[in-house]
Amino acid sequence: MKTNRRGFLKVAGLAGAGLITGCNSAKAASGSLDKKTVFALDHIREEAEKQYKQLFNMSGYCAPKLDVVRIGFLGVGNRGSAAVERISRIGGVSIVAISDVQHDKAEAAKARIKSPGHEATLYTKDDEAWMEVCRRDDIDLIYIATHWAMHAPMALYAMEQGKHVAVEIPAATTVEDCWKLVETSERTKKHCVILENCCYDFFELLTLNMVRQGFFGDIVHCEGAYIHDILQSFFDKKSRYNNWRLKENAERNGNLYPTHGLGPVCQILNVNRGNKMEYITSMASADFMLKKATEENAKSDSEFAQFLHNPFRGNMNTSSIMTNSGSTIMLQHDVSTPRPYSRIHLVSGTKAFAQKYPLPGKIAIGHDGFISEEEYEKLEKQYTPAMVAKIGDLAKQIGGHGGMDFMMDWRLIDCLRNGLPVDMDVYDAASWSVIGPLSEWSVANRSATIDIPDFTCGSWKINTPHDIELKTGGTTGVLGK
Amino acid sequence: MKTNRRGFLKVAGLAGAGLITGCNSAKAASGSLDKKTVFALDHIREEAEKQYKQLFNMSGYCAPKLDVVRIGFLGVGNRGSAAVERISRIGGVSIVAISDVQHDKAEAAKARIKSPGHEATLYTKDDEAWMEVCRRDDIDLIYIATHWAMHAPMALYAMEQGKHVAVEIPAATTVEDCWKLVETSERTKKHCVILENCCYDFFELLTLNMVRQGFFGDIVHCEGAYIHDILQSFFDKKSRYNNWRLKENAERNGNLYPTHGLGPVCQILNVNRGNKMEYITSMASADFMLKKATEENAKSDSEFAQFLHNPFRGNMNTSSIMTNSGSTIMLQHDVSTPRPYSRIHLVSGTKAFAQKYPLPGKIAIGHDGFISEEEYEKLEKQYTPAMVAKIGDLAKQIGGHGGMDFMMDWRLIDCLRNGLPVDMDVYDAASWSVIGPLSEWSVANRSATIDIPDFTCGSWKINTPHDIELKTGGTTGVLGK
Repeated sequence: MKTNRRGFLKVAGLAGAGLITGCNSAKAASGSLDKKTVFALDHIREEAEKQYKQLFNMSGYCAPKLDVVRIGFLGVGNRGSAAVERISRIGGVSIVAISDVQHDKAEAAKARIKSPGHEATLYTKDDEAWMEVCRRDDIDLIYIATHWAMHAPMALYAMEQGKHVAVEIPAATTVEDCWKLVETSERTKKHCVILENCCYDFFELLTLNMVRQGFFGDIVHCEGAYIHDILQSFFDKKSRYNNWRLKENAERNGNLYPTHGLGPVCQILNVNRGNKMEYITSMASADFMLKKATEENAKSDSEFAQFLHNPFRGNMNTSSIMTNSGSTIMLQHDVSTPRPYSRIHLVSGTKAFAQKYPLPGKIAIGHDGFISEEEYEKLEKQYTPAMVAKIGDLAKQIGGHGGMDFMMDWRLIDCLRNGLPVDMDVYDAASWSVIGPLSEWSVANRSATIDIPDFTCGSWKINTPHDIELKTGGTTGVLGK
Repeated sequence: MKTNRRGFLKVAGLAGAGLITGCNSAKAASGSLDKKTVFALDHIREEAEKQYKQLFNMSGYCAPKLDVVRIGFLGVGNRGSAAVERISRIGGVSIVAISDVQHDKAEAAKARIKSPGHEATLYTKDDEAWMEVCRRDDIDLIYIATHWAMHAPMALYAMEQGKHVAVEIPAATTVEDCWKLVETSERTKKHCVILENCCYDFFELLTLNMVRQGFFGDIVHCEGAYIHDILQSFFDKKSRYNNWRLKENAERNGNLYPTHGLGPVCQILNVNRGNKMEYITSMASADFMLKKATEENAKSDSEFAQFLHNPFRGNMNTSSIMTNSGSTIMLQHDVSTPRPYSRIHLVSGTKAFAQKYPLPGKIAIGHDGFISEEEYEKLEKQYTPAMVAKIGDLAKQIGGHGGMDFMMDWRLIDCLRNGLPVDMDVYDAASWSVIGPLSEWSVANRSATIDIPDFTCGSWKINTPHDIELKTGGTTGVLGK
């Protein structure tokens, strides 16, 4: 992710030629923006304004049923390894291939398989071994859990090879790649599922169901976040292959990891399915933590010194998003200051209110304060969606961030096996992930507003919300603990 | 507050004459703004960009000592009446005049005086009676608690008549009036104190003192809010003279009441005293509540029907503010959806973290969660500022939003009696209040960025934080309950 010097010079050139002089409209149109804006990262805005015509509507798309879902894993150095274990507990899957640039990681992941009958071949020869996995003709689904920069290239290649894709968050780090994911999924009619596990956390699913049943009335405003102090992990060379996460946070300044907070809130607001995100403005604090920590770590390991010339990501990113329904979203991102974990998950409606963090999850009806634990439990019983009723307890037992990871995987496999539309399609993958680069543009341009592309090309008006009540499917078995 | 039609037509005219055509820079400068912006409320931006030269620096200004502070109250229909009672418990004051357009309100306020020796004359003849109070030559301080639209006109007139001023929030509702307050205070050398009581609440003062003593390290990000479901009160004709608060919320769309959340956070960030606010972007949800409630109330009282043609304020306003130090502020405003009261008051530093709402106030050191009640009490003992140690218990006894109102009044009187700089000066009054109209401009222009005027004209670089440790003063007595 580099500043587009060509774009910058183009504008600078116009200014030099005097074309800006006397153009009062520029000032009026831009508010105070024209004073200090440096037209940074303009390639992001150009891509965001791209006109596109939908090839095929992948929202609600039913792919042919798969009795057994044959899976190849790409990247098992960190989250991918736990995914292998979870998937191996689900009925009707076959783990066919595991790929990683580090052979020992692939071995370790294979050793976590919990059920018999999987003949997983390892692909660890070099950093192109994953392509071989994608080219195999006995694989249905490529499950991607590498570092961010490889998500989109791998997803694109896998779809081109006729595979469904499940890709870790963010699905892409550039606007260009978001568009490519959409175009490729539509052209190949392959699912591109974003693995946003927080959409399957219990309070999130409970409030989603309550919203759908009208408990909150109209939704006025929502909030989400990824606030998680993982600063020290940036310097853990075992878990962060090639210092990739430090690199992202050193080179890019925005909400780089928007989907944990945004995914659940977009589902609540029916984004891409009756509603859409219109525009965003994003602000970043200065960096008070990252550069200092990098300097500190570079003292004992000179490898980190290569990052010191970077600008580093402002520690707290705060973004505001307007949606077509007039409901707003406040979205935050902070992975480096010392504060308790939070995804906020706040839902403010015309009839009720919910807020998950600071824990525990709380619900209020009216302004007099939050309801009692007893009343909460009553509501929980009444509004727990069928998906949770069916698989929630098993998921908790199996674990993975308290169960949500397993619920997500099970649902994905069940949809593929029953030929059902996936819960989180390529439009969700693109629109949730595009917040990363769009927020970069806004931060670089004094928080200027930027339009959010409609990756559905207007189909959001007819697309329908996903099924959390298991009206269809739910037939896939589970190997418990 | 009306859209500046002249400004709109000026720009529209340019477009009509083809001057915008071919001006690629407009697009580059404004991001996506140029697509839909209607250049609304441009007079706000013009005033915000006004150049001004300081006449005299009122920050840190020591006015001549007043042994007895002689006070005239303007507006006692609501909060003013409680102020009369509180002030009457403070030593070295004389309540000389009480003015209100409703005679019975003035009588009721006078009846609340708790100490002997006050000979308060009532001024209730008409809606200009307050001017007579300002013109008296035996008054030192005019205490203003009328509806918002009268705050600035009254404060300006009072200063012109040689009186110090204490004015309820917001001190002004237009950028023009913010500038006028600054210019008039500087020219007359009269204090213009904003009555932001939340700056004197206990958790706010505790965290402020902790920040000053380095407990939080550098401050990365803060949050504040005024989230208070007072929708029904808009239709209470007894407490809302002439439906003024419904009118404000019907006609203007922005963060109309920013200072409860912003004041304490600006003190923590040393805004105007070592730091300054740079720019703001603001987003408003649609209105899901106000128009419906107005329609409902208009059924039984046709007087409310006059407001139905208005656009109504979007229920939730979310604003982001950049400060010179690189610390950011997230500021919210919602007075109409059903949710628990919150001013958030969040402080995120490089060493520690605090968050007041949802209650109770919590502090975290590191990311492992909030400290125990026991540890909290220890910190509270260690970091309670002298002002609270001296007057806090008495203030709680006397009350007024839990004691903060009294602490504010006592401190104001003590500063005037001892000839000390006031805690919240005209620059605070102007810069905290200007967020109202600036947020209106941003909301009307798709959340475009707008610069925040530096009312200190650069003096923020030399101004020093206010004294919460009572290094001087603290001599004023109190009549307890």
